[in-house]
Amino acid sequence: MALDHNIVVLVGGVGGAKLALGLQMILPPEQLTVIVNTGDDFWHYGLRICPDIDTVLYTLSGRVDPVNGWGLADDSRVVLQSLADYGENTWFGLGDKDIATHLLRTHMLRNGHSLSEVIDHLAKAQGIQSAILPMTNDPVPTIVETAEYGELAFQEYFVKYRWQPTVTGLRYQDIEQASLNPAVTSALQNADMILFGPSNPWLSIEPILSVPGMRDTLLACDVPRVAVTPIVDGQAIKGPAAKLMAELGYDDVSAQNVAKHYGQIINGFVYDKSDAAFHVDALHTIGMDTIMKNNADKARLAQQMLAWIKEWT
Amino acid sequence: MALDHNIVVLVGGVGGAKLALGLQMILPPEQLTVIVNTGDDFWHYGLRICPDIDTVLYTLSGRVDPVNGWGLADDSRVVLQSLADYGENTWFGLGDKDIATHLLRTHMLRNGHSLSEVIDHLAKAQGIQSAILPMTNDPVPTIVETAEYGELAFQEYFVKYRWQPTVTGLRYQDIEQASLNPAVTSALQNADMILFGPSNPWLSIEPILSVPGMRDTLLACDVPRVAVTPIVDGQAIKGPAAKLMAELGYDDVSAQNVAKHYGQIINGFVYDKSDAAFHVDALHTIGMDTIMKNNADKARLAQQMLAWIKEWT
Repeated sequence: MALDHNIVVLVGGVGGAKLALGLQMILPPEQLTVIVNTGDDFWHYGLRICPDIDTVLYTLSGRVDPVNGWGLADDSRVVLQSLADYGENTWFGLGDKDIATHLLRTHMLRNGHSLSEVIDHLAKAQGIQSAILPMTNDPVPTIVETAEYGELAFQEYFVKYRWQPTVTGLRYQDIEQASLNPAVTSALQNADMILFGPSNPWLSIEPILSVPGMRDTLLACDVPRVAVTPIVDGQAIKGPAAKLMAELGYDDVSAQNVAKHYGQIINGFVYDKSDAAFHVDALHTIGMDTIMKNNADKARLAQQMLAWIKEWT
Repeated sequence: MALDHNIVVLVGGVGGAKLALGLQMILPPEQLTVIVNTGDDFWHYGLRICPDIDTVLYTLSGRVDPVNGWGLADDSRVVLQSLADYGENTWFGLGDKDIATHLLRTHMLRNGHSLSEVIDHLAKAQGIQSAILPMTNDPVPTIVETAEYGELAFQEYFVKYRWQPTVTGLRYQDIEQASLNPAVTSALQNADMILFGPSNPWLSIEPILSVPGMRDTLLACDVPRVAVTPIVDGQAIKGPAAKLMAELGYDDVSAQNVAKHYGQIINGFVYDKSDAAFHVDALHTIGMDTIMKNNADKARLAQQMLAWIKEWT
């Protein structure tokens, strides 16, 4: 197959980063653009922390902790232990090397750099040649409404309470005032294919889609727009996608309902080959082995997706 | 001698912290108050860093690095090395455990706590029972005017350029708008003795004296007000005091000129016994072994000072 394509992939954290790494393994770096959710970003101990972006950076630089899928490999936790010694509740895991990333980002943001500039600097410093773009440079914190605790900041819900509270609603705070990153618009307009990682549709992809102008820009892109399922056999591969789907009122927690949720935004959908085939209107669908356990899996899925998309375009 | 005295000591960093530790060793904790210079405080990588306060806290908690006299013993530098790996110029030494202090302080300040409250929390968390008070809760950065680089932020002058630039002037930015810490006023008014550590008179003590109301409050305290020389045999025990004195125009870099510089603020002065005796107007003076190499030295100097002051009061 030809690889002379500009590929854009929208992702959240671990799952999306895996697909991005697969694409990086098979594409020339200048042909890959990764658009990342920033709804998870938050301030913690004076540090600006961007969990999804860092997971993407660490994954694409080959530095990610292979067990967790986030954080840095071989990191220590001296700072965190010292905070615990001060009596702090250290519910958010911060490795020492990881803290250096947050310090440098905070430093650059406070010196007037945009988040895009910061990420570009961090990416290049880690040897990443593909473009890693935040969906917006504006803070748009995802707020999770829960039955047990009321409104929670995203990381409180996700990490502190380990996504166990019952979700009654979601909102993307200040999103109406956010500006779509101009580099995102440009990348989409130049894209030959737009992919959606197997990320959480509501917690990772929906914030990206909710930035004003993003949906219209996507819909105006007359190219394949293909999502990979985060749901296999009614379960999430990782994280709260399945639990959340049930809490949001879906009777059937399935890949098909994820595809329906994306609606017109996508025109192709990859479900897991272990699930039943389905067809939704004009949507191109296919079953593949979507579970990426190792780097070979990631490259294979990326390769198979591009090959399949080439078939119907 | 009786120890039923309220003792207040004004200090900067390493030298002053040593005298404070000596006093802590011989006094009931409720009788010791340490007033600390905050002119060195600065923002670095989004962290609020208070070098003199931390030196005092680490010294009085017994956690200080015994070689440097600042920072924490047995600390690692994983974060700093990681910043260097990102291409950063890591001119300011930050240990990993030390960074936890800065993170907690920054966190508390951003949550609306005053610097006094933060220091009180950090002190208690480290088991310190004496009162450690910042001179003010307002930021009053010391600016060093140099022949070579123009104006430098204090830590740039002191650490980045290792106090080698020629000082042409000093100013304590925003000091006119600063409010004296009310706990400082109260401690001084209840003090039976006020001591000035062997700290740099211009870089450590002068910022404290320059907070509006501080000189008048001190002068109104009709108690012994006794300074210890930072100059022995024309040299600073540590740091730029002697070099600075010459640059500020003193022909004679001597303890006597330090005493004259303090003027009416003090009514007693301890010079080193290796220097020649001197008398200035109504000032009580005495020579002691002022060099504190170990904890026994610190307790001895503190004890001798209090005993001598008792003699003339």
